[in-house]
Formats: sequence, structure tokens, C-alpha cells
Amino acid sequence: MKAVHFDGTSLGFNPEFPDPTDGTIVRVDLAGICGTDIEIASGYMGYKGVLGHEFVGTVVKSESAALVGQRVVGEINVACERCHTCAAGLTRHCPHRSVLGILNRNGAFAEYLSLPERNLHVIPDSVSNHQAVFVEPLAAAFEILEQVPLRPEWRVAVLGDGRLGQLISMVLDRYSKVKCFGRHQDKLDRLENLGVSASMCIESADIGRFDVVVDATGSSSGLIDATKLARPRGTIILKSTTASGSNHNLTQTIINEFTLVGSRCGPFAPAIDALSSGIISVEDMVDCTYSLDRYGEAFERAKSGALKVLFAP
Amino acid sequence: MKAVHFDGTSLGFNPEFPDPTDGTIVRVDLAGICGTDIEIASGYMGYKGVLGHEFVGTVVKSESAALVGQRVVGEINVACERCHTCAAGLTRHCPHRSVLGILNRNGAFAEYLSLPERNLHVIPDSVSNHQAVFVEPLAAAFEILEQVPLRPEWRVAVLGDGRLGQLISMVLDRYSKVKCFGRHQDKLDRLENLGVSASMCIESADIGRFDVVVDATGSSSGLIDATKLARPRGTIILKSTTASGSNHNLTQTIINEFTLVGSRCGPFAPAIDALSSGIISVEDMVDCTYSLDRYGEAFERAKSGALKVLFAP
Repeated sequence: MKAVHFDGTSLGFNPEFPDPTDGTIVRVDLAGICGTDIEIASGYMGYKGVLGHEFVGTVVKSESAALVGQRVVGEINVACERCHTCAAGLTRHCPHRSVLGILNRNGAFAEYLSLPERNLHVIPDSVSNHQAVFVEPLAAAFEILEQVPLRPEWRVAVLGDGRLGQLISMVLDRYSKVKCFGRHQDKLDRLENLGVSASMCIESADIGRFDVVVDATGSSSGLIDATKLARPRGTIILKSTTASGSNHNLTQTIINEFTLVGSRCGPFAPAIDALSSGIISVEDMVDCTYSLDRYGEAFERAKSGALKVLFAP
Repeated sequence: MKAVHFDGTSLGFNPEFPDPTDGTIVRVDLAGICGTDIEIASGYMGYKGVLGHEFVGTVVKSESAALVGQRVVGEINVACERCHTCAAGLTRHCPHRSVLGILNRNGAFAEYLSLPERNLHVIPDSVSNHQAVFVEPLAAAFEILEQVPLRPEWRVAVLGDGRLGQLISMVLDRYSKVKCFGRHQDKLDRLENLGVSASMCIESADIGRFDVVVDATGSSSGLIDATKLARPRGTIILKSTTASGSNHNLTQTIINEFTLVGSRCGPFAPAIDALSSGIISVEDMVDCTYSLDRYGEAFERAKSGALKVLFAP
């Protein structure tokens, strides 16, 4: 099959990558490029294999006959379901897990992928493929609500107006008053048009005034800005996995008694529901769609700041 | 009056330091040396003035006649009580605050100190001076319970068997099952004798198994060990203010979705109650008591790892 593969040094297109054979087989209809993919292609995680973990596809082989032909999205962490972490219900944190396109499991930038049936969620007809490909990153936004129940009177700052910052701003603004801080007028305008407050700069009236701050900048400066915006005893959500290689000074965190919450993958069900009911709109975030052999252009486009670049394998 | 003073470069004894004149005046009966004092004497915080913030004393001057002659301890943060942070009830975080012996306010290593009456707590007769001098650090241990309500079935690790680690282990063990990790057999034995589990080394069975980990090491390695001990989605309490100047990599915090909670000063009332009722015992932690002019010996003794070194001005 065709696949975009990372060999530990560089990305490449392989028109004859071996087809997956185990588990349920999904034909990939659309797959999205995420900031993590860009970082992995720079050597982050030391991963080697087919990239990609955001997808919507169609089941072509399964032990469950009813599943064949269904449109699905898939949770990316494949747990062992035998260890004490899994027994505690923390399957997304199973220490023996593989992760689609990230850790020991070939990903979605290919014609086919394999996942266990338990990882798949059938997409209702009311959700288009161009919406469904956002389920995985949208679930990561909903993860914040699982970790920090928001109050309506709270002020929430979202740092970063990119792919993830957009989704997080839209989701959290339904629960609290969100202000997104970004660097791209067009992206901030998009949020303003959806009724979310947005700004290019941190003003003095913003300092120390937010109950919750989400760092979705993907940059090491994000946490520094977050500690400026959070009120004493406020909560800072860390979403910038790929920027976390930088080192951070925690003096202000202790003096101001901040709570820092690491946040990663999230629950698929509320993300699918939010797209199905139309309360979260994402289709206008799609920038371009490429075939797999044009992976170089696609990655360059994603790096240039396009909101969502897709592959249609 | 006699006072131990830090001029920004070195500690010194001044037999003729100006007496305090404003507010309620307290004659210091006992004052304790804390890790923060040792750090301030190394230039941390850029503080200049009389050191010391743990004390018990007797009111010698007050606008409230009933307060004169009473034994008191004092909350160390003096808030403006006018700003929006104070209005939100976060007076310990007032951005305009002074802090006894730490920030813009002369401290307790002196014959007299000044604090507003609202900062003082009268000590009941059932609490000795050697107990009362522990109220401030014991309140810092109780702060953890204000921030993270513990569950009886949780496993809690306390890293550090020093002054603060001892107090935290004793307090938290009343709410959850605590295991203290330290480097000094005599200090770990003290906790074992009080019924608290204690160990010199992290064993493989400890890795990733604690719901809550408290870093009270005062060392930059504390957070590294904490991320080894915490389970996925576990909580890490940061108590090592003075070690926070080091930089920390937050990759594991995000991947494992840890919650990091900065924790500082705490509520005095439960600390006084715990000493009064005898549920927390501290008097055996007192190592030596010095006069102020022997400040050099006292600080050396505190640095050598003695649990609690006192001044009797």
C-alpha cells in the first residue's frame, strides 16, 4: 500500500509499504497532520514507522461482520488491558501501550491501518468525513473538561490560535468566558466570528486575572506567558507536549500556588456528539487536501501555519 | 534590640537594631530556623533585613488591651486588603504584601517584631512554646489538604525526611497511607516510630504507584523522583520553593497527565488545633536552642541537617 514513512532521519513516500494484517483493518479516507506529526518528523519520540494519528476511515475487515463498511474514527492508545494501570481504568496511560503513528504502531498516513475493534467509534451519518477527521484533536480539547470542571463565572485564557488552540477555545467557551491570545489576525478573527474573545497581545488588565490558562502554543514561551496570566492559585493546563522538552523554572508556580495540569488525549464520545449536534464547527478549518505522494508539500503547508492539512490516501 | 540581620551579602548580629514601632509589637520568645532562612542567607529572594518567620511570642503593645500579655503566633503574609486579589479572599497572595523576614518586613530573629493584629493567633495554654514555634511550618503542611482533599484509600509518598517532610508525613498520614522517602535513618526511624511507613530507597514496586507525591526535598532532584513515583494522572505537590530555581522538563508531566500543585503557606487554625489536641507531636524535633549572638553556630547546625534549631532571643 502507499504510506508516508519516517525512518528516524527523514520522511519518505513508500508506494509498496506492507499492508497491515492483524486486528480490524480500516481503509483511511482522510487523515490530518498535527503538530505532533511535525515534531515526530524532527525526531521527537524517536519513532520510526508510518506517521499519522488523526483519521476517519471505513472498516474493510473485522471479526464483527456488522462493523465492515462502517465509517469509523479510532482512539490512538492501544492498551494491554492486563496491567494494574489498565485495571485502574487508566488505559490511555497503559505503560505497555502502543500509540497509532507515535509509538510502536504504524499510523494513518497510509491507505490502510490496523486497530483493535475496541478502539473504534462508528461515526453517525450526520457527521461528514471533513468533520470526523477532527474527532481526535477535539477529544484532546474535551480532555480538559474531564480534568478541570469549569465554572461559568471563570475567566479562561487560551494561549495559541493554531489548530489545537482553535478547538480548545471553541469547546471551553461553551462552559466559561474564554479569551484566546494568538499571533495571527485571521485565526483570531475566526474565533471572534464564533463569539470567542481574541487578542494579539497581553494587556496589563490581563495579568494575573485568569482562573484557568491553557497553553496550546506549542512553544516554550507558552508557560511563561501562562504564569503571567493566571491568578494566584489558578490552574494552568499544559497542552504543548512537543514544546515540553524545554526546561521550565517553577518558582512562580510555587509562590503563586498554581496548579499545572498535564493534558493529552481525551474522550471521543463528547467530541463526536459536539460535531454531530453542530455545536462545534470545524470544516472551515480545513486548508488543503493532498495525496500521500505529495507529503513534502503537505508537511510544508502544515508547518507554514495552515489550520488543518489533510491527506486523502 | 538584638537582631540577626542579612545585608544582602552576609548574616550579622546587631545588638542595637532599631526596635519596631508600628502595629502590634510582639516580644519573640522562640524562633525557628527554616530551610527558607538558609536560602535567604544565600541571597534567595534578594531580601535585606532581619531574618526569621517561625516564632512564638508575647504581645507587649497593642491597640487591643486584651491582647497584651497573650502568647501568640503570626501569619507571615501582610496583605493590603484593598486589591482585587485580597477581595477574592487570596490575601496570602496579595501582590502588594510584605512577608515577615522574607519580603519588605523585618522578621523574628530579634527581640521584638511587628505584625498587624489580624495576623496574630493566640495560643491556648495547652500548647507549649516549643510546640507553638512549629505552627507556621505545620500550617504549610495543612495547606496541602486545602489544595488536594485526600482519600483514605490513596497512597501518598513524601519525598524528604527533613523538617518539612516530617511535618507533612505526620499530617497526611492521618488522611491517607503515607510512605516517606528520605536519606537519614534516624529521621526515618522517627517516622516509623510514629507509625508512618518510611524508606531509604525507591524500590521497583514503588514506581508509578502513588496517587499523590509531595516533594519536600528542597532539592532539584525531588521533582525527578516525584515523576517516577506518581501514577498516571497522579498529583505532585511542590513544596521545595528554594529548589525551584532549577529548571524542570515537563514532558513526563504532560505524557502522564500529572497535576503539579505549587504549595506554600497554610492555615494556622488546624495547625494550632493539631498541636493542642496532641494528634501531631513535634517537641522531640527540637535539636538545639541558641541566643541570637550565636547565630553562626545556629545556622551551621541547621544546615548540618538538625531537625529544628531555635533562637531564644
